[in-house]
Amino acid sequence: MKSKLPEVGTTIFSVMSTMANECGAINLSQGFPDFTPNKYLLDRLSHHAHSGKNQYAPMNGIPELRQAIATLTQECYGRAINPDTEITLASGATEALFVAIQAVVNPGDEVILLDPAYDSYAPAVTLAGGICTHISLMPPSYQPDWQQIEAAVSAKTRLIIVNSPHNPTATVFSDDDWLALANLAEKHELFVISDEVYEHIVFDQARNSAHRYPALFDRTFVISSFGKTFHATGWKLGYCIAPPALSVEFRKIHQFVTFTSFTPAQYAVADMLNKYSDEVHGLGDFYRSKRDCFINAMQASRFSMLPSAGTYFALADYSAISDKSDVDFCEELTREHGVAAIPLSVFYKAPPNSRIIRFCFAKREETLLDAATKLCAL
Amino acid sequence: MKSKLPEVGTTIFSVMSTMANECGAINLSQGFPDFTPNKYLLDRLSHHAHSGKNQYAPMNGIPELRQAIATLTQECYGRAINPDTEITLASGATEALFVAIQAVVNPGDEVILLDPAYDSYAPAVTLAGGICTHISLMPPSYQPDWQQIEAAVSAKTRLIIVNSPHNPTATVFSDDDWLALANLAEKHELFVISDEVYEHIVFDQARNSAHRYPALFDRTFVISSFGKTFHATGWKLGYCIAPPALSVEFRKIHQFVTFTSFTPAQYAVADMLNKYSDEVHGLGDFYRSKRDCFINAMQASRFSMLPSAGTYFALADYSAISDKSDVDFCEELTREHGVAAIPLSVFYKAPPNSRIIRFCFAKREETLLDAATKLCAL
Ligand SMILES: CSCCC(=O)C(=O)O
Ligand SMILES: CSCCC(=O)C(=O)O
Repeated sequence: MKSKLPEVGTTIFSVMSTMANECGAINLSQGFPDFTPNKYLLDRLSHHAHSGKNQYAPMNGIPELRQAIATLTQECYGRAINPDTEITLASGATEALFVAIQAVVNPGDEVILLDPAYDSYAPAVTLAGGICTHISLMPPSYQPDWQQIEAAVSAKTRLIIVNSPHNPTATVFSDDDWLALANLAEKHELFVISDEVYEHIVFDQARNSAHRYPALFDRTFVISSFGKTFHATGWKLGYCIAPPALSVEFRKIHQFVTFTSFTPAQYAVADMLNKYSDEVHGLGDFYRSKRDCFINAMQASRFSMLPSAGTYFALADYSAISDKSDVDFCEELTREHGVAAIPLSVFYKAPPNSRIIRFCFAKREETLLDAATKLCAL
Repeated sequence: MKSKLPEVGTTIFSVMSTMANECGAINLSQGFPDFTPNKYLLDRLSHHAHSGKNQYAPMNGIPELRQAIATLTQECYGRAINPDTEITLASGATEALFVAIQAVVNPGDEVILLDPAYDSYAPAVTLAGGICTHISLMPPSYQPDWQQIEAAVSAKTRLIIVNSPHNPTATVFSDDDWLALANLAEKHELFVISDEVYEHIVFDQARNSAHRYPALFDRTFVISSFGKTFHATGWKLGYCIAPPALSVEFRKIHQFVTFTSFTPAQYAVADMLNKYSDEVHGLGDFYRSKRDCFINAMQASRFSMLPSAGTYFALADYSAISDKSDVDFCEELTREHGVAAIPLSVFYKAPPNSRIIRFCFAKREETLLDAATKLCAL
């Protein structure tokens, strides 16, 4: 059988988590917390399942949750969103990203990706018949060079995908980055997908978003999710905010990709947002202390930690320890030193010649300190 | 913005359910039960959510659930399936269908659909760049004519999608149909997607499946789901059974479409299958009494009921009542007579000149009798 994705293997997140489980290693690879969500969220899940909310939700999501998202967006960024025509729930940000890409990319269209890029973007573009134009962001700053990006725009470029706070580099767009993006998109009439799943996990500045830049509104799909926000990555509840004309196209496709997502969770998350929005607003503080715990503990190691401005990831340069490729080094770390991490090169089309890996610090302090102890022994 | 699916509107299921809700009509349109799942299933959901199962499940689904599916498949059809290499969980049968289509259809490939066909098939084929070849099944028998189907096969035909028990016609493939399908697929080297989401809801014969026809194994994706089986359509947990080479391609795509589905539900459904597989095996009896209740009550009406051999749907010919198109008649039924149904023509590329609509009888007897009373007044 001819593969539609001949260059694609199993996602690195599955590969490393499987290896971590086999070896009993501390799993700082795939991004997920090792602590539990707020009990209220779980209680509301149980409540709604037991009180008859087990059939199909509306295709675009239950009204209560779309309204709560509109309220949150207003609180965070001052943007008024129409929950009926501009918000669509999806089965995780992954589905939302996939559908948005399908909605705008036609065969032969070019799509700009900023590498290291989340590994679902390129295959989704390929399946839509599009062609990826990869721009490499370079260590140690990983700052986008907007002139270089503009130089890569051709007459066929239709879409640019951005991600801030950025996984895996833990960088955050500056106001200048957003303005440059808005300029570029307007000037070249590009669609924008803004992957903001870590939007609330920002450490050194206020939260920011495509929602603050009106020049982006007409052309942008903002994708976010509750998995990271409520410490429940297995809940797979994401959403897309886009203007009505784009939401219509998004929904046409979403209805045939998953139609809708787990009903009791939609009600539980709506309750959670209505009751504990302070938990959302406090997420940056919550993760800042984990970041500081881990990075401080790693000062005693031979790893050189890069700054983490957002997300629950931190990069580490291991060139003082090993000459191995990052893929081999991650395997060695997992199998021989009991800590799993993610190699950075897999997120590049043309990896730079660096020795950098990603750790996830969405873990209890105890876990982070145990891992740091092991890593300090290298 | 140029639409990728210019001919597609909002799925008929959303349109009719929304209309039913607005009018306070009894909703026999979109297929879902108005009763609750087994309390054990809900209790296990709550249990697993409260005991720490809220992070990403493995991309192909938790091992416990894949094993339970293998056991069920063995019990029902005597086929041994390898749960590690041949079973992949998905976010509903809808996602599984979408992914299987993406996995095999390349631009320009032709795909045979038997109309009336579930409304997600054709858009999924279109998004993959494929071209649908529609064969119309004709009332009142809706039997496939395999010679006619073979005549539609061209050098470009790559896939045939079948669905038995069949939604919306409530027909079930005979042994001869399965053999003819296997013959056709082998002879012309076609892939097969066998949509079997109603597999356990069969009234007048034993359950049957692509799983019983070894000639199909190498080339077939069997798609099923727990939504119908456990009366929880909002749980969105489906799966694909395919040989290893096809499952590899299926997973490559699935990992970037949704990656995985709601974790606590995967554990709860595994528990349910392990404890209450008798509920699965009794599903035909359970729904037979609902079918009989509804069809008997409708004998006093001017609708002419067609036989229902499987699924939880029954077709009704209303030509003695109205000359309206089925779309207009369904709107009139909903707005003026308080019962919502689904028009059949929307599932055809070239609708036959018939006056037939679909009722869902996955309802409490009380609901069915109330609806029948209203319908008998026409
Ligand atoms: C879909 S599993 C990947 C989790 C994640 O977002 C990450 O580790 O970067
Ligand atoms: C995805 S909503 C459709 C439910 C259904 O399968 C039907 O009514 O046929």
